[in-house]
Parts: sequence; C-alpha cells; structure tokens
Amino acid sequence: MVFKRRKDLLGIEDLSREEITSILDVAQPMKDIIFRDIKKVPTLRGKVIVTLFYEPSTRTRTSFELAGKYLSADTVNLAVTTSSVQKGESLKDTIRTIEAMGADVIIIRHSMSGVPHYVARNTSMRVINAGDGTHEHPTQALLDMYSIREKKGTLEGLKVAILGDILHSRVARSNIFGLQKFGCEIRIIGPSTLMPADIENLGVKKYYDIEEGLEGVDVINVLRIQRERQKEGLFPTLEEYSNLYCLTRERVALAKPDVLVLHPGPMNRGVEIAGDVADSPFSVIEEQVTNGVAVRMALLYLMMGGTTDEVND
Amino acid sequence: MVFKRRKDLLGIEDLSREEITSILDVAQPMKDIIFRDIKKVPTLRGKVIVTLFYEPSTRTRTSFELAGKYLSADTVNLAVTTSSVQKGESLKDTIRTIEAMGADVIIIRHSMSGVPHYVARNTSMRVINAGDGTHEHPTQALLDMYSIREKKGTLEGLKVAILGDILHSRVARSNIFGLQKFGCEIRIIGPSTLMPADIENLGVKKYYDIEEGLEGVDVINVLRIQRERQKEGLFPTLEEYSNLYCLTRERVALAKPDVLVLHPGPMNRGVEIAGDVADSPFSVIEEQVTNGVAVRMALLYLMMGGTTDEVND
Amino acid sequence: MVFKRRKDLLGIEDLSREEITSILDVAQPMKDIIFRDIKKVPTLRGKVIVTLFYEPSTRTRTSFELAGKYLSADTVNLAVTTSSVQKGESLKDTIRTIEAMGADVIIIRHSMSGVPHYVARNTSMRVINAGDGTHEHPTQALLDMYSIREKKGTLEGLKVAILGDILHSRVARSNIFGLQKFGCEIRIIGPSTLMPADIENLGVKKYYDIEEGLEGVDVINVLRIQRERQKEGLFPTLEEYSNLYCLTRERVALAKPDVLVLHPGPMNRGVEIAGDVADSPFSVIEEQVTNGVAVRMALLYLMMGGTTDEVND
Repeated sequence: MVFKRRKDLLGIEDLSREEITSILDVAQPMKDIIFRDIKKVPTLRGKVIVTLFYEPSTRTRTSFELAGKYLSADTVNLAVTTSSVQKGESLKDTIRTIEAMGADVIIIRHSMSGVPHYVARNTSMRVINAGDGTHEHPTQALLDMYSIREKKGTLEGLKVAILGDILHSRVARSNIFGLQKFGCEIRIIGPSTLMPADIENLGVKKYYDIEEGLEGVDVINVLRIQRERQKEGLFPTLEEYSNLYCLTRERVALAKPDVLVLHPGPMNRGVEIAGDVADSPFSVIEEQVTNGVAVRMALLYLMMGGTTDEVND
Repeated sequence: MVFKRRKDLLGIEDLSREEITSILDVAQPMKDIIFRDIKKVPTLRGKVIVTLFYEPSTRTRTSFELAGKYLSADTVNLAVTTSSVQKGESLKDTIRTIEAMGADVIIIRHSMSGVPHYVARNTSMRVINAGDGTHEHPTQALLDMYSIREKKGTLEGLKVAILGDILHSRVARSNIFGLQKFGCEIRIIGPSTLMPADIENLGVKKYYDIEEGLEGVDVINVLRIQRERQKEGLFPTLEEYSNLYCLTRERVALAKPDVLVLHPGPMNRGVEIAGDVADSPFSVIEEQVTNGVAVRMALLYLMMGGTTDEVND
Repeated sequence: MVFKRRKDLLGIEDLSREEITSILDVAQPMKDIIFRDIKKVPTLRGKVIVTLFYEPSTRTRTSFELAGKYLSADTVNLAVTTSSVQKGESLKDTIRTIEAMGADVIIIRHSMSGVPHYVARNTSMRVINAGDGTHEHPTQALLDMYSIREKKGTLEGLKVAILGDILHSRVARSNIFGLQKFGCEIRIIGPSTLMPADIENLGVKKYYDIEEGLEGVDVINVLRIQRERQKEGLFPTLEEYSNLYCLTRERVALAKPDVLVLHPGPMNRGVEIAGDVADSPFSVIEEQVTNGVAVRMALLYLMMGGTTDEVND
C-alpha cells in the first residue's frame, strides 16, 4: 500500500491520513512478536539495512537495529566518527558506496535539515529519516501516534499538548503534522525563547503559561531539554526551566483525568518531567519504546513489499 | 536447575557448590561446539542479548557476543561512550528502555561495585555481572574453575595461589568465593600496598614473599597489573613490581611439579608474568579464553531454560 | 584450488596468475548474489570472521563484513581503539585470544608493513591482509583487476596508468604486482616527491608529466591524495597537486577512447579527480565497490574449502 507508490519515509507532513493508518495497523501484530519467546520471523531474510548516523543516538539506532533483526534482516551500523566522511568524501559518494555494497534500506540521522531528502534523490535504496536537524523525526511521531491510538482507541479530535523546547524540536513538528491530519487540537507550551516565531502558521495554539495550556488536554507530550543549557547562560537555564515548565503531579491534575503522558526519551527526571509523573499510571513512556520497535518493524516490512493483508493473516 | 530458582548471575559468593558444578558440567559439551566446523546451534534463536559496558573490555564483551552467536541468539552491543547515558538519563531508565525493546538478557560491566545488583532489582530481564568495580567478576571465576577442574580432574582441596594486585581485583574475590566452596586453600600473594586490610577475614592466607607463597601450590592465578602504575609514582612501580613479583620460571619451580598457571588476560609479559612462563606447558592461559566462551554459552543456555539433562543427550 | 595449498592471502606478489584467475572466476557468480532479492546463501553458516583494524576504514571493513553476512558467516568487528591493545597486550597474544574464541578467519589492517605476515605465522586461522603500511592491499588489487577484466574482457597486455601518491600507496604496489603477471604495461605518474626512489626496479615506466603518461592507455587507476597535505606545507600542496595531476576530462581525452577510470575511494573530488570524470561513462568507480564485495565473498568462500567447480554449478 503505502510504499508501493512511495519509495521513502522522509517526513510525516507528506503522508496521508490513510497511509499513517496503514502503518499503525501493521505495527499492531508486529508488537506481539517483540515479547514472544522466539521473536524472530523470516520476513526480511537476505535484506540489508544500513544505519548511517551523523548524530549519536543509541536509542533510535538500536530500535531500528532490533526491528531489522526481529524480521531476520542483516543490519550494519555506520557511525560518522569511524566513517569515510572524515576523509573528505562527499555525502553523495558515501551513499552510492553503501548502495553499491547491496544495501536495501538506509536509515539516516543528520544535524542538518533536508539531508535525507537529498539522499533519497540520489539513491535507489529506500531511505528512512531518523531525524534531520530541526525538521522532522517521522518514526518518533508514528510511535507517539501509535501509543496514543492504542490507549485512547482513536486519534480523532483529541486535545494534545506539546511541552518544552519547540524551537529545536523535530519531534514537535512531526507530531503536529501527524496529529492534525486526524483533527487533533494541538497546544504548544513553552517559554518564548524556545518557541518558533512562525509556529502559529502551523495552526497550533501557543501558550507561555503551562497551567493554562494543560487545562483539559487528553495527551501531554513532554519534550527533552538539552542539558547543555546548564552551562551556557541562556534563558531559561535548566533550573529556571524546571521551575516554570517541569511536568509535576499538580500540573498533570489540570488535564483530563485519563490524560496520557508521553516523552521521547532519554528523560531528564526533575528537569522537564517529575520522576513521579514519569512512573505514574498516566505515563506510557516505557511502552513508547516497545511501540517504537513495532512501528519500525511495520515500516521495514511495508517498504520491502509486505502488505497490510498478509500481516493480518 | 540453577536458573529456575535464580533469575540472575551477580556473583559467585551466593552460588552453591552444586550450582557451580551444574554450570561447569554444561560448559563441557559447549566447548566442543566452539571448534566444530559448523559451530552454530539453534538453541537461542529469537533471543536477544544486550551487552552494556560502562568500562571498555573487548575480551569479555566479544566472549559473550560469540557465546550468544554460537547459540543463534541476536546480540547488540551498547558502549557507554555512544549511549544515552551521556545525555543524563538515569541508569534505571536506560535499563527499562533496553527491556522495553525486547531484550531477554543484559550483560553489564560497571566501574562501581553493586551496579548489577541494582539493575537486577529493576528489571525482569536476566542480568549477568560482567565485572562490577572491585566486587565480583563471576564468569571469570567460573572459567578459571572450569580450566582447573578440566586439567586437575577435581577442584577438591587444591592449594591455589592468587598473585598480584588483590586490592583492586574482582577476579581475586570471585575466585576466592568459588574455590573455597570446594575446600581449596587460597594463598594471596602481593605487596602490602595492593592487599586489602581485611583480606584475612575471607579465610585466606596472606604472603608478602612470593617464594614462600608459591611453595607447593597446585595452581597459580596471576593477576594483571595496571600499566598506569608506570606513570603515577606509586609503590610499587611497574619495575619494582616486576622485580618483586613477576612469575618467572625459577619461581614456578617452587610450586608442585604439575602446577597450572592461569592469567585472566590481557597479559603484560615481563611485568606480572615472564613470557616463557606464559608459553610453558604449565600455562592454560590460551585455553582459558576458549573455556570463557564455553562457560558463557552454558550460562546463557541455562538462563534461557535449558537443563543439564538435555545438553548431555 | 588456491587455498588448498595456501593458508592466507597476504599479498598479490606471491600469487600465481592461475590463482588470481581462480579468485576472479569465483567472484563472478558471487556478484550476482549481491543484487538478488534474497542475497543470503548458507555457504559459511557457523563460520566466524573477525576484522581487526588498527587503522580506521569503514569502506573496506564493511565490504568484508557484508561479504561474510551474504554467505551467512558470523562477523565480529574489533577496532583498535576499543581493544585490549591499549592495555599493553602483545599482538601475538591478541591474535591467540581471537583464535581461542573460535574464529576461523582474521582480516587485519595495520599501519606497519609486514604485520599480517607476522600474524599469519602465529596462528592457524586464515589471515587476509586488508592493507599493511605501504606494502600491499591485495583485495583492492583483486577488485581492480576484476573490474578491468569484466569491462575489457581480458587483462592481457593492457596499458595501465597509476596516477598519484605512489610513495605511500599499497594499492599501487598490489596493482603493479598483479597486472604485470598478465603482461600489462604499467605507467606510474606523479610528482617526484611522491615517487619511490627504486620504483623502476619493479619494471614500471615513470612519468612526472601527466599528459605524457596518459597517452594511449587502456586504464587509469587514480590514487587518493591525503587531505592532510593541505595543512603541512609539503610539496605539492593539495592545490598544487590538483593543478598538476587532477584527472580532468581534457586529460582523460589523451588516453584510448574506451579508457576505464578507477579509484579505490573515498574520492577527493576536485583534488585528484574531477567530479565530471568520476561521474562519466569512463568511470567504474561505483561498480568497483560492488566488485569489492564480490571478490571478498569469493576469497572467503575459497578459503573455507569451496571449489571453483561447485560455485559454477
């Protein structure tokens, strides 16, 4: 379905509501595989998945690596520090080299927005964007949407608050694009210094006051704050941020009684989220990790020619 | 047997004599697999083993990785330098993330004593301690015991000298705990500055004089000396240590004629052990490496539900 | 055939013309596997291949890793920065440790010439030289020869120009040794400061003038220039080198009309080779990468007991 017409997954923005639904539907049976006694299925035997990460991320890389292994694909991890990139090779040549070795899918993370799109145009391999600059992180949004849909039964018309450093967050952008396609109302909460100037153009509501923003929401997606803020004398500092925006129990109480709390991880407990909130029944943070593997299995499966029908047999 | 009652392997101290014997018994048929033409058996197909090393160690990590691969498990290596740990995530959250991705066993090394115990209490995954601070290194002791039992026929009542930096050695502690359960007499040999104050509480004999300590022993287990001593102006320096405690041919001659020489590796030839001793017929140092893989295969096999009976069929 | 008599692949110099032909013949069916839908064949199931790289090289290491995986071998990568080598272990002990863990083949790269030969004498594992100092890089020469033979139909009597930093190039040396066995005329082109004093002893023709050297050749093999030259004030600098020796369209036109252009990668576009030459129909640079995997599959297959006959069945 999805990946018959479409070669790559570069962002949520250009996916249709139907395409997103197909991916989430396939992720469901995939999730069952992860905790089976023998979690290996032969679906992608003989396929080669290469991860090429120009920014470090054990969490996302390992999630893709395991998703591939559970489907019996071969996986190769290329980290930028050990790659030919240091030797002055152009990105295009690096990609062509990986393709010439027989890889079928490349999963790329880069600090510059748009790199996966450039790569996709220059290769016949399938390309998955694992995070590009401040642009998109589509698989994170898919796993967030999966987690919400699983608990709420639907994505339709939910009120979703996204809390934190919106300015630097590709997670926020991908969530906004995806959830809006299902008619969600998106509220953006954070300090003005961490809020993009043009954010309202995306059709979201902006809140500087966390109490006001959280009132009556169905879902709170808490973003990670960069620890580097501690050193650099920016406003807000980590401590100021924590006072103003940390998601505490008291603040969670302003939302709907059955609110869901999400966080992409890794968490700074006591900074952007209180430890007791992270461990509360509202939190699906740990389950998001499992859902991340499931969604990535679904993607790889669909990209390699699997169909929604087969997997549900 | 062992791992029906017991979830984890955290130390030798709390293993019974019978449990140790079961592990060593299963290691025997595992060892045969390592040098077969096709060394892969499907026993752990679909199981996921994650190594999480907060201290570098190619030797131990690769040994576990190959043990897993020979049994057809999937293995993922997480090194601390590339992991989320840098990003301020708590250890508990890191462990829960690994568990949520579907891992079955986690193998952990950490510079602080007690970390594997903390991890074990916070996860339903199986945990294997691959060395924690100056506390224990149980798989090293198991492979040492396997190596001794294989050559001597029994562990019962042997005289075993442990030579070197006892103060910083988890290998020494795990060996003491294990060998004493089989009635071995343990002699600790080394300079006073590298000897723990309370070592005699463990029921071992203390020797500052190497010649005296080695007299009549069945086994000499030589510990590795940290090369860093060369720079730091400690007593003894590397050179002083070598003069006083290097295991030379002359010193080996003081032990029983059929003495076994062990070393956990990597060796500093000419520092703690003379090259000709390492290469002599007394030495089982190279075979210890093979036995290490075999013992780890046995552990993984037993932890995943295998029984002593099956493997001997 | 080849590896019945011969344990290791240490260099092209000591291979016979017949042995080289056997390897290239087996590489042909291997190449077909790389772009199949399911590229995995069970040939080396249960075999263990270890890469031990003392110099970083993602390209060559990944090529060997994938070659092993396509044949269902288990592969383990040991990089020097994380290995016991740092801890003062001797090379011989490192090798014996790898062997004792059950590895079947070791693939080694080292900055010092002769290391693979020393290793080969001290292990019963198969050893493949993946580049030693300025000495040899035999699998690069094999893939270059495969690429030439595939396009030209034969290696017999071709005129081959090798262009660049001959002094530091193990690729140049391995190519010279290999191509001469097939009666090729070898021309060496480069500045006098990058030309070995005794190069003419190898039976090659020396050219300082690129236009003169390229005239009428069948093949141009362009070597990589170290980017470090930019900083160090050597002659020629990168810029001077580029003016004098960059392979431009104009210069390619001096060769035969059906000339082949090779480069071992990673390329410095605009330094040793013009971008439009790299992307021209003359160039087989990208295909060399695929051929590299194929040649390494052939090697591993033959080393593990495969025969030329079987693979052609």
